[in-house]
Amino acid sequence: MRKNVVERKIMWGDLDSLGIVFYPRYYEWMDASGHLFFEAIGLNLGDLWNKRQVLFGLVKTSCSYHKSGRYHQKIRITTYVDALADKTVVLKHAIRERPTDTLLVEGYEKRICLDVSDLNNFRAIGIPDDILAVLKDAMNG
Amino acid sequence: MRKNVVERKIMWGDLDSLGIVFYPRYYEWMDASGHLFFEAIGLNLGDLWNKRQVLFGLVKTSCSYHKSGRYHQKIRITTYVDALADKTVVLKHAIRERPTDTLLVEGYEKRICLDVSDLNNFRAIGIPDDILAVLKDAMNG
Amino acid sequence: MRKNVVERKIMWGDLDSLGIVFYPRYYEWMDASGHLFFEAIGLNLGDLWNKRQVLFGLVKTSCSYHKSGRYHQKIRITTYVDALADKTVVLKHAIRERPTDTLLVEGYEKRICLDVSDLNNFRAIGIPDDILAVLKDAMNG
Amino acid sequence: MRKNVVERKIMWGDLDSLGIVFYPRYYEWMDASGHLFFEAIGLNLGDLWNKRQVLFGLVKTSCSYHKSGRYHQKIRITTYVDALADKTVVLKHAIRERPTDTLLVEGYEKRICLDVSDLNNFRAIGIPDDILAVLKDAMNG
Repeated sequence: MRKNVVERKIMWGDLDSLGIVFYPRYYEWMDASGHLFFEAIGLNLGDLWNKRQVLFGLVKTSCSYHKSGRYHQKIRITTYVDALADKTVVLKHAIRERPTDTLLVEGYEKRICLDVSDLNNFRAIGIPDDILAVLKDAMNG
Repeated sequence: MRKNVVERKIMWGDLDSLGIVFYPRYYEWMDASGHLFFEAIGLNLGDLWNKRQVLFGLVKTSCSYHKSGRYHQKIRITTYVDALADKTVVLKHAIRERPTDTLLVEGYEKRICLDVSDLNNFRAIGIPDDILAVLKDAMNG
Repeated sequence: MRKNVVERKIMWGDLDSLGIVFYPRYYEWMDASGHLFFEAIGLNLGDLWNKRQVLFGLVKTSCSYHKSGRYHQKIRITTYVDALADKTVVLKHAIRERPTDTLLVEGYEKRICLDVSDLNNFRAIGIPDDILAVLKDAMNG
Repeated sequence: MRKNVVERKIMWGDLDSLGIVFYPRYYEWMDASGHLFFEAIGLNLGDLWNKRQVLFGLVKTSCSYHKSGRYHQKIRITTYVDALADKTVVLKHAIRERPTDTLLVEGYEKRICLDVSDLNNFRAIGIPDDILAVLKDAMNG
């Protein structure tokens, strides 16, 4: 299974009044890590949009919170394909603190393939064969 | 069942390149709506923290996306208690566009009662009786 | 002088570890208040973009911080045109706490009129006459 | 002069509907880069707060925008001390695209030294001598 790893540091602006990460930030990082995962397996989402009018929209997202992230901690986000269907793909993200690898947050994004050629009316479509092949390789490879 | 309603407008800074809401924003609004819900039933979370060192930390959050939110749409967020246990409470949030009331997003936050008197070591506790009573009233009233 | 007023509440997610507003939030609110100001004087920026391929891009922004905003404070943001030239407009924003009207933050956004018909190559243009007239009225009216 | 360099990639969630960076993001990055600059010269702001109840609050911030940042561009943020007085320090930040080094944004944060031992009542103080010495070295070194 192909995994992509992103490392970052928890910054002041990520924290709430308790001194722990304000949780929507985890979703921002998951979204960014998803884009970097796609890029790592050869699917630049900007290109997909510009050249083929295809994007992956959201069906569902979720996070479980195991331990609080805190100021200037280093974290590692690991992303992989957890499930794949005709129209949808599920990306899982594990966020761990470094260097202990203690799990902070686990989450997923279920995304559906969209034809976005009409920006005012997205349409769900089957994932194009060549893209599906790349995602299958990433899941099973 | 007690429901709290928050209305807002989708702003330019909430949008992504597709011209639809960047999804972590929905979680920001749910978090804010949860605080306003607590306040509406007489539980100001700032006071709970300052006077009793009690807060509700996160166990799990999730959103399902039904329709994309767009520029300067008015939205209505409805929040209520969906489940209650000794230590935990689940808040549900429905986000609808106005005036049609079409559902955009449904989400929930499962929160656990924490003793935060030691900011470096939060401890799960049973929800204090008086707070539990208020939450029960909000759920069943 | 035409002024537009926006009221909002400072939420948990707007705060940093010190319990005061994380300052990029003020810019988010100024940006949103600018859009609402334009709308209030009859210039919907979404329409300007879609129908005329015109938008107001940024040249410079600035904020001075006078007093810290805190949890669940009500604030009032007052926006008006402070300067106007052939290609540029300066919006000023004053953020005050309610009900005392104590000044928290003063800021401005200097924006330049752009032809955005080519999304990959914005071009500065003179503000179209009809739009300039509306802005002049808002400044002097 | 001591400079600290931070590299990052512009992500999907940083963009607005025009496909360019939503400008409050630049301030988030400047804030984060400021913290990393302080850390690089031996001043961890978390420690300053916890051990000495000293922090640097904001007096004024500003950005000038020269070129739009776009999807998955690599950027380099260079931070240094531009001015220093008894109570205040000015950090400058230059944000350039990579690898061309074309300037996207220039900004600064003017910060004032605060005694934050009373979280409800910050008090401006002279920068403590040892910290001032470190900042002087960073500016002149």
